[in-house]
Amino acid sequence: MKKNVTLAMGNGGEENNALIREVFYEAFGNEILNKSEDAAVLEVPNKKIALSTDSFTVSPLFFPSSNIGKLSICGTCNDLSMMGAKPKYLTVGMIIEEGFGFDDLKKIVESMKRELEINGAMIVSGDTKVMPKGTIDKIIINTTGVGEVLQEGISSNAITQDDVILVSRDIGAHGATIFASREGIELESELKSDCTSLFPTVKALIDGGVKITALRDATRGGVSAVLNEWAKQSKVCVEVNEDDIPVSDEVKGICEMLGFEPAALANEGTFLIALDKKEVDKALEILKTFHQNATMIGKISDKYIGKVVLHSEWGTKRFLESPTGELLPRIC
Amino acid sequence: MKKNVTLAMGNGGEENNALIREVFYEAFGNEILNKSEDAAVLEVPNKKIALSTDSFTVSPLFFPSSNIGKLSICGTCNDLSMMGAKPKYLTVGMIIEEGFGFDDLKKIVESMKRELEINGAMIVSGDTKVMPKGTIDKIIINTTGVGEVLQEGISSNAITQDDVILVSRDIGAHGATIFASREGIELESELKSDCTSLFPTVKALIDGGVKITALRDATRGGVSAVLNEWAKQSKVCVEVNEDDIPVSDEVKGICEMLGFEPAALANEGTFLIALDKKEVDKALEILKTFHQNATMIGKISDKYIGKVVLHSEWGTKRFLESPTGELLPRIC
Repeated sequence: MKKNVTLAMGNGGEENNALIREVFYEAFGNEILNKSEDAAVLEVPNKKIALSTDSFTVSPLFFPSSNIGKLSICGTCNDLSMMGAKPKYLTVGMIIEEGFGFDDLKKIVESMKRELEINGAMIVSGDTKVMPKGTIDKIIINTTGVGEVLQEGISSNAITQDDVILVSRDIGAHGATIFASREGIELESELKSDCTSLFPTVKALIDGGVKITALRDATRGGVSAVLNEWAKQSKVCVEVNEDDIPVSDEVKGICEMLGFEPAALANEGTFLIALDKKEVDKALEILKTFHQNATMIGKISDKYIGKVVLHSEWGTKRFLESPTGELLPRIC
Repeated sequence: MKKNVTLAMGNGGEENNALIREVFYEAFGNEILNKSEDAAVLEVPNKKIALSTDSFTVSPLFFPSSNIGKLSICGTCNDLSMMGAKPKYLTVGMIIEEGFGFDDLKKIVESMKRELEINGAMIVSGDTKVMPKGTIDKIIINTTGVGEVLQEGISSNAITQDDVILVSRDIGAHGATIFASREGIELESELKSDCTSLFPTVKALIDGGVKITALRDATRGGVSAVLNEWAKQSKVCVEVNEDDIPVSDEVKGICEMLGFEPAALANEGTFLIALDKKEVDKALEILKTFHQNATMIGKISDKYIGKVVLHSEWGTKRFLESPTGELLPRIC
């Protein structure tokens, strides 16, 4: 096999088949994928499934704790998990620039394989395109996933004043890490992306009998975007205590250096939960087994419908707006 | 709304939401999509579903009879149809270059909408990324589809010596059209892409009681790639009469000019069927209501297992190999 991806490897013929067999089937092979049909035929466990898609364009491709491959599996599996679903079947669309190195491609694919195992999911169908040099920057990966809904009714449109808001860990690590990596900022700290699969945490909550109102991972747009969407979609006011939002010293440092707001930074393994006040203790006990700094950050009211209010430690308050402008392109 | 896509429209915040609402929801909006959850929750009609993904990188974006938007719906819906499935739910991943024009984006989205209607399918989940100028050439679209399996057991691994091979129409139109468009070859002819949704034809075959062994649309790699895959996957010899393969004069002209083989050119609305000899008359009667030049092109034997033999009108024979080398990058 060659050392780099060639245009011919996207031709639908011999070289394309060789790439698919030697790299993708080698890592992802299973009874369904190996049938090499135009579409995978799947037995779904019940009649309610979750379906989600995401394209990954992150730059750089490799960054502290993770890479585009791991991210591409976490991203889609997490979106399924956020609907209370167990990730089952994934498709993968690889779009690769001519000349891309096989060593990097294999590292990416190996990371995907490991992350699929964590989710108990498998790749059942795929597509590989190769684009001429200069028409795409290195590699883009699309993943689409089918999940089995374990807990029905989780919805961003269902939050009421009986609910409070929890966060699963300290925020902003992914955004800060990508920014530091891209700009070549050398950090002596432990800053690394939070990129991780959230299904194990969600499963623990469901298995623990926690009744969840809404779940959302705070990816592009960060915690600000999620809270604003929830406020609008559920027609409620979200009130958050700024001081209660956990932010690591490393992320604070990057934010102060660059004038970013931690709540606007992207995360790839951090999520928000809305649930009834009565469920808080049980939920936090479970969340803390995954991250010690999981905590409650806010409550729901009817003060400013569709808005997010941030209370400072000084007793002042302001609206936390959904992010605007270009923060960090190619964050995920 | 601005006239061009900006980086901020991929930020996960305000501008991103505005783009999604004003362009994508405007065209694709439905009860499921409008819920704006992390994943769509779907009721599947039975426990057997088909799942397929494809990324579309075609250049140019607009070409005779079609564009990347129509192609992105046809491509995935056709892959589902080729497994005997009715296209039901699609996801769409848009990856757009900063500065891409809104007029073109809207034309693309409108074409997608029309083609979804033909298939009776809907977009239930999506993702939009914007990449900085120069890091991607204009736009790439990924679509992934879930279909309801109408006829079980259709498989490229199931072809036997009782089967014969039919083609649904004249071949190579898409490949020839893209090549002519890209090179600026002015044709006074009627050459246009065959890009079309095949579900109506497949449904007519199934409704007509035709028992199908295998179906495959002859996209990248053309008829040569499909026949070679079938020969290998089903461990049979495919014997084809070269003269029986319908090729239009326009496609013949392009092929002679450029030294291409029509059977290696891509199609986007042309498929091969393997079925029992006894089913031929019924199948051709139905196929001809869609394309008058649908016809039988070959049979199955055990002469050269895993190979495709092409018989010429002069009585000579040669192996038809799976395409190698770079034919036409970004054909689909």
